[in-house]
Amino acid sequence: MTTFSNSRTVRIEWGDCDPAGIIYYPRYFEIFDASTALIFERALGMTKFQMFKKLEFAGFPLVRTRARFLKPTRFGDDVTVYSKLTFGRSSFDVEHQLSLNDETCVECSEKRVWVVRYPDGRLKSHSVPEAVLEKFRQ
Amino acid sequence: MTTFSNSRTVRIEWGDCDPAGIIYYPRYFEIFDASTALIFERALGMTKFQMFKKLEFAGFPLVRTRARFLKPTRFGDDVTVYSKLTFGRSSFDVEHQLSLNDETCVECSEKRVWVVRYPDGRLKSHSVPEAVLEKFRQ
Amino acid sequence: MTTFSNSRTVRIEWGDCDPAGIIYYPRYFEIFDASTALIFERALGMTKFQMFKKLEFAGFPLVRTRARFLKPTRFGDDVTVYSKLTFGRSSFDVEHQLSLNDETCVECSEKRVWVVRYPDGRLKSHSVPEAVLEKFRQ
Amino acid sequence: MTTFSNSRTVRIEWGDCDPAGIIYYPRYFEIFDASTALIFERALGMTKFQMFKKLEFAGFPLVRTRARFLKPTRFGDDVTVYSKLTFGRSSFDVEHQLSLNDETCVECSEKRVWVVRYPDGRLKSHSVPEAVLEKFRQ
Repeated sequence: MTTFSNSRTVRIEWGDCDPAGIIYYPRYFEIFDASTALIFERALGMTKFQMFKKLEFAGFPLVRTRARFLKPTRFGDDVTVYSKLTFGRSSFDVEHQLSLNDETCVECSEKRVWVVRYPDGRLKSHSVPEAVLEKFRQ
Repeated sequence: MTTFSNSRTVRIEWGDCDPAGIIYYPRYFEIFDASTALIFERALGMTKFQMFKKLEFAGFPLVRTRARFLKPTRFGDDVTVYSKLTFGRSSFDVEHQLSLNDETCVECSEKRVWVVRYPDGRLKSHSVPEAVLEKFRQ
Repeated sequence: MTTFSNSRTVRIEWGDCDPAGIIYYPRYFEIFDASTALIFERALGMTKFQMFKKLEFAGFPLVRTRARFLKPTRFGDDVTVYSKLTFGRSSFDVEHQLSLNDETCVECSEKRVWVVRYPDGRLKSHSVPEAVLEKFRQ
Repeated sequence: MTTFSNSRTVRIEWGDCDPAGIIYYPRYFEIFDASTALIFERALGMTKFQMFKKLEFAGFPLVRTRARFLKPTRFGDDVTVYSKLTFGRSSFDVEHQLSLNDETCVECSEKRVWVVRYPDGRLKSHSVPEAVLEKFRQ
């Protein structure tokens, strides 16, 4: 089973927070989406922008996600996002754990599909290219 | 069991969409969050802003959410969001269904807690006030 | 001189506001961007999505903007956005006035260019198509 | 005249970009807002969250802003934001310059006021505390 994990630090900003003074939860999904992209960037050695140019790739849209919010975070917090990806055939799963001072604040799981763009402009799911999987195995 | 449902139309905007030309999924959670607030506004006859002034209330933060993304939506789409709320004691569940031309695009469920602010500034969960439940029963 | 004006109501949402309890100002630019798109939608009878399909059009990116913030707005506020567009040759200016209860809260001006996509993928400014101007003159 | 400058690198994310494949311009204002907060954090040695706790401070809302957009940026771009702050009495100006590979992409100027919260809950402008100015002079 091909897995890959990644960790990064994210600053929670004033503009991410709501009138209760804590993060507005849709912002967490922006953070997780960028964390998923970063896993690919680190494994493949190219940004998502370059993936569009160099791979048979038109995105990895979300099929489903689940999140549990255990503790709030606030502007000025530097949180750690640990993310682990596991490949299926034309899909993959990512588990994100967002923590502050070693306490888990949010857990999120995602299922995404690898899609390519057909000549008619529509997006269709497609098996993850072998060239991609190979990079993750290294 | 006290339930309440609500329906509204939302325009998907250019700025809600990503380079794939479809909605960037964290925007769905912004839509659902506003739909949940609107259920309370319609049942109570006051905006969320007024709820803070008039009720023992400091928000209804999310405890967990799950979403399934079945079909993408695009800028210019006018989607329908149907939301149904069911009360527990100090929590409540909301089911959202977002559809376009009678086809379901996203299904989302939320569990939220009713919180009040303690004198020390911290948010604590609290049973939903009877005055609120009464309005929903009418 | 070809001008066109437009007015709409926008609800300021909880998620648009920051820990000071007032709107986080970048949200105003999202509102103004959508208001500019709506002027075209109403004049041309097609959404921005349809404009990409039916017109020589790849967007109207902003060249510059200026905004003055006179009074804050809050979640639950239903604000009015009045927008007036004036065409130049390959550019146009939009003046937005956002008000609450007849008091101006924000004034914003934009200069945008009409762009088309060249075969090499790059965006270039282009004179506004006559077919577009004609619709605005009616 | 008390000035202070600051530089940081920001990654433009997929979710910051629109269907044209370039950054959706309201995101620039989110970047600039965070850059302004960071100037204070670096000068005062405390986050904005701590400023609320430790200073006579309820925010520095924007009075006006102007921006020129010279070149677009894309997801995967690591842009540099250089920001320079100059104090007035109860206000201050910030000039931001956002560049990619030494080419200026956006120039933005802001005027902001220092506000405190009055006992009735309203925000009022207030001269910048001497304790703050002193830190900037060091």
